[in-house]
Amino acid sequence: MPPTPAPAFDAGFQAQLAALFRWRRDVRHFQPTPLPPGLLATLLQAANLAPSVGLSQPWRFVLVQDPARRAAIRANFTVTNAQALSTQAEDRAATYARLKLAGLDQAPCHLAVFAEPDPQQGHGLGRRTMPETTAYSAVMAIHTLWLAARAHGLGLGWVSILDPAAATTALDVPSHWVFIGYLCLGYPATAEDQPELEREGWEHRSPAELRLLHR
Amino acid sequence: MPPTPAPAFDAGFQAQLAALFRWRRDVRHFQPTPLPPGLLATLLQAANLAPSVGLSQPWRFVLVQDPARRAAIRANFTVTNAQALSTQAEDRAATYARLKLAGLDQAPCHLAVFAEPDPQQGHGLGRRTMPETTAYSAVMAIHTLWLAARAHGLGLGWVSILDPAAATTALDVPSHWVFIGYLCLGYPATAEDQPELEREGWEHRSPAELRLLHR
Repeated sequence: MPPTPAPAFDAGFQAQLAALFRWRRDVRHFQPTPLPPGLLATLLQAANLAPSVGLSQPWRFVLVQDPARRAAIRANFTVTNAQALSTQAEDRAATYARLKLAGLDQAPCHLAVFAEPDPQQGHGLGRRTMPETTAYSAVMAIHTLWLAARAHGLGLGWVSILDPAAATTALDVPSHWVFIGYLCLGYPATAEDQPELEREGWEHRSPAELRLLHR
Repeated sequence: MPPTPAPAFDAGFQAQLAALFRWRRDVRHFQPTPLPPGLLATLLQAANLAPSVGLSQPWRFVLVQDPARRAAIRANFTVTNAQALSTQAEDRAATYARLKLAGLDQAPCHLAVFAEPDPQQGHGLGRRTMPETTAYSAVMAIHTLWLAARAHGLGLGWVSILDPAAATTALDVPSHWVFIGYLCLGYPATAEDQPELEREGWEHRSPAELRLLHR
């Protein structure tokens, strides 16, 4: 079989990809509509193509559907969020309380993501001095899923206001797995090209030039 | 000004995006051709749109052009790689030695990437229990740059076989920055839809279904 020719990504695709990056949002408000059949599998297959250290594919996805487990995650969030609120300066606390940080109550699909910190697959290549690269690989799998989801009209919200150990226990996964994040997935309530944190006055983006040094 | 309507990403774009994920490679062999003027700035602007915890944009890019600094990174890689080689089982050591893990000698563009672990921007939102989310944000900036680069015909290679402390010193950046990775960027010597580690018999991809649990 002759090798598949490499696709040519033209200026039209480049512009659409740039729009995808610009319109990807951390979504907190969802419609209750469930995902159409097969779409989650498509997204997970895309995520499985993410870069991984030594081709180790250390990401582990957990589809959370059991109401009791969802309630445990929600309780974890509530406690952690209250603690986080108490550490904010007074003038920001009101904004923080208003942010409604979780789509946990609305999103039809919940995915927890973990990394296997010492996978057999990959034979340790590339992570001897940087063991955190297995977690980084799982992060890129999440980001791949995020972009694919947005291209299919879905929104994703990454919840990091959680106690990782409690999340690991609540989901009954191997205790040595590293908790990376908890994802809410569904059709977004609104379409926005500006981050919600910017609209709510929490923070503003600053330009790329400020983040580049020359050496 | 009326709000910009959200772009509709159609089936054609979804298919091209899937091809981008499939054809993104960790590239180790480059043509010496430099990047066209302005392209690096375009890629960094795309990376700057990556998700970040609390909209903190904690990624820091360092464009490394000084020959002495490049030589220091190369020496760092050589030492770390030799140590890694010695920990591989005998039957895999020969493969490892052959892998030519670095495009450090060929790539025209070198970017080191760091994370600011405690950025002012973002006001701490979302990272109290998971401080590693600043590093994760920088990882997603790298991944965004990687995909944008591939869409423009460029290849990227992520070098993680480095001692992070030595890399931080060699590049004279603030010592509290967290070293995330060192990127080689340029036009790839060949176009491949199969990972080099797979072609070289190091490891094979396994399917997404193996990475999904139900709870």
